[in-house]
Amino acid sequence: MPSATAHIDLSRLQALLAGVNGFGRNPRTRGFNRIGFSEADMAVRDWFADAMAADGLAVRRDGAANVFGRFGPADGPAIITGSHLDTVSEGGAFDGALGVCVALECVRAMRDAGLSPTTAIEVVATAEEEGRFGGMIGSQAIAGQVTREWIDQARDADGVTLVAAMRAHGLDPYEILNAARAPNSVRAFLELHIEQGPVLEAAGIPIGIADSVSGVCHLFVRLGGTANHSGTTPMDMRADAFAGLAEVAGAIPAVIGEIGGEQSRITIGKVDLTPNAPHTIPGTAEFSVIIRDISEAVMRRLADRLRSEIAATATRHHLTAAVEDKSWLPPVVLDRELARLLAGEAAKQEIPVRAMPSGAGHDAQTMQALCPSALIFVPSKGGVSHAPAESTAWPDIEKGANLLLAALVSLAV
Amino acid sequence: MPSATAHIDLSRLQALLAGVNGFGRNPRTRGFNRIGFSEADMAVRDWFADAMAADGLAVRRDGAANVFGRFGPADGPAIITGSHLDTVSEGGAFDGALGVCVALECVRAMRDAGLSPTTAIEVVATAEEEGRFGGMIGSQAIAGQVTREWIDQARDADGVTLVAAMRAHGLDPYEILNAARAPNSVRAFLELHIEQGPVLEAAGIPIGIADSVSGVCHLFVRLGGTANHSGTTPMDMRADAFAGLAEVAGAIPAVIGEIGGEQSRITIGKVDLTPNAPHTIPGTAEFSVIIRDISEAVMRRLADRLRSEIAATATRHHLTAAVEDKSWLPPVVLDRELARLLAGEAAKQEIPVRAMPSGAGHDAQTMQALCPSALIFVPSKGGVSHAPAESTAWPDIEKGANLLLAALVSLAV
Repeated sequence: MPSATAHIDLSRLQALLAGVNGFGRNPRTRGFNRIGFSEADMAVRDWFADAMAADGLAVRRDGAANVFGRFGPADGPAIITGSHLDTVSEGGAFDGALGVCVALECVRAMRDAGLSPTTAIEVVATAEEEGRFGGMIGSQAIAGQVTREWIDQARDADGVTLVAAMRAHGLDPYEILNAARAPNSVRAFLELHIEQGPVLEAAGIPIGIADSVSGVCHLFVRLGGTANHSGTTPMDMRADAFAGLAEVAGAIPAVIGEIGGEQSRITIGKVDLTPNAPHTIPGTAEFSVIIRDISEAVMRRLADRLRSEIAATATRHHLTAAVEDKSWLPPVVLDRELARLLAGEAAKQEIPVRAMPSGAGHDAQTMQALCPSALIFVPSKGGVSHAPAESTAWPDIEKGANLLLAALVSLAV
Repeated sequence: MPSATAHIDLSRLQALLAGVNGFGRNPRTRGFNRIGFSEADMAVRDWFADAMAADGLAVRRDGAANVFGRFGPADGPAIITGSHLDTVSEGGAFDGALGVCVALECVRAMRDAGLSPTTAIEVVATAEEEGRFGGMIGSQAIAGQVTREWIDQARDADGVTLVAAMRAHGLDPYEILNAARAPNSVRAFLELHIEQGPVLEAAGIPIGIADSVSGVCHLFVRLGGTANHSGTTPMDMRADAFAGLAEVAGAIPAVIGEIGGEQSRITIGKVDLTPNAPHTIPGTAEFSVIIRDISEAVMRRLADRLRSEIAATATRHHLTAAVEDKSWLPPVVLDRELARLLAGEAAKQEIPVRAMPSGAGHDAQTMQALCPSALIFVPSKGGVSHAPAESTAWPDIEKGANLLLAALVSLAV
């Protein structure tokens, strides 16, 4: 009964996470800034590699700056577990870093319990998951999804190229192409991550097991009207771009109710009016529409319907309408067998779990293209993430970590 | 039949307007920048004063930098006619400047016809009508509406104080208080101005006679929700500040239909979301609501109803709502006798006119507090104003100028 003897040392895990969070902390805001390929990101990667080496793991870096620590047989296939160490700007203490630290703590717990895996376990700290350059570079490199063309065009919001950002740290960006793992060399990928949403907390359930990851459609819309005087232009002679946008936004609940599903999400998060002056009718309204669902067919239906709502609204309001497809990421179904294994281990430990989709993107969805992959969620207080207030209760983290540990023992020992 | 002999010289008027528009022109945008109390504004005022002096008018400046040119008896009450020479940033060629030039051309036409007024006519180029400092300083000074406290607190959008802006040109700001005219010294005020709206053009009518000026209520609204992840937060667990704003905006047509009138205008012109990022549910939405009507009772009803719509929407969307009263300008009824005189003169000249309210603010509404005041509109092409594309057809201008001339002859000779 090996899983009965191995168990998570919560205070050791807390100390490890505190070590990681010694990097990139803004003392004024209490936010964390370990942007992918920044100084703080490269420094925390070195620190974490040293920590794994001190534990006796065989440490290796690949061409994408992913850091691996291997426990168990030097040869043969491996089970990979971990997450990312980079953060968004002014992010929280748990997003990504928790999954990396829990993975190493699982190995430490197995070692303490005298367990020797027959299949190697590799702890991974993936590179640049938060999308500074528009992707999840570390896991996409492992899964062999990065092309030379993509590397050459990738740049961040400030116009810094990926090539320049990597070379600034002495890295060769084209080595990313050599980071791809052979499919038969990786048996499984398991990731623990904060939910980043309010569902588990609201339900009072400590653990989520993701069965899928929502796809994302990003539309950029520009409605064009006429910027006239708000006093002299009668209501029925206006071409008010904001009135058109408001009508599109107002239609969203009915659209979801009619043709969407329980997991449909439509968000207008960014709005820019011109001239954006109180006394002037808005001449243009530029806005983003983000459509997410776990079904690509539903996504397609919602996107088509929004396009026709936008066109019809533009006609009614005498506006021009331009809709640009910024990106389309299809939904991903995670491995059913691994999810069943996790549910079984949770039942043994009497931990209540909920099967649920992931609304956010994670390394696990990329890795699923390479190998069976699983994603364990722990609750986010208030559903908050990507902010200094991001937090998860330690008893919940302990349950999630013990569940990952049990699954690794079951798969590897 | 003096009005039969005096007539407008259109090419002389065109040359005068071109002279004024030699000041503050941006050759790149073709916009005009004679911001109140700027270098260009002070220079055009000097140039216009010289032009009036060359015509033999008695030129005088008051403490608010209003420039007057008096034609006729040196003593006794006067009829004032004119408008303003300042522009908004990147404004058009006609807003304000046309009314000043037409006033001087009327005097020139009377002089050419050998007409000697028994009541003096004063051509005025008022100061700072466009509201750089939040008022219509020139006409408010003439009407005795400016206080020392107001002078001390007035500042522009960049934080420059009125005191500093006037002192930079060697002017004593407190002299504004001495610019007030005694009510019995002014018989009437007549202003010609572009409509700044599309009503006359759409109706195919060359002249509008304003019977009133709409009041303006400016509300500043802040809806506060929670800026969460757009993928992980279910639709029914959101506090989406923009969804709330869209619902408020969507209610406007029904609110006007139900309790507003034909002259009701409600505009949301300025919107600022936080964090304003595509993948994040808007945490706050700050926006302006401008309510205009010719009836203060209707304005009050609309403002009350919008407050309750905002409160109800906030409750439905789990948002906080704060509504700040930025300003409340009551509507103004212009002088009925003068409007009747103008309509009668137009009928004699067989010029079709429309009685209409003014949706924009003008010096005439301020002057109405001091003396009977009237406002003649000429059509704005496409309803455009405050932009380089601002334009009015010269045949319409000629009709408007001859109407003003006839009224001045009727009142003064």
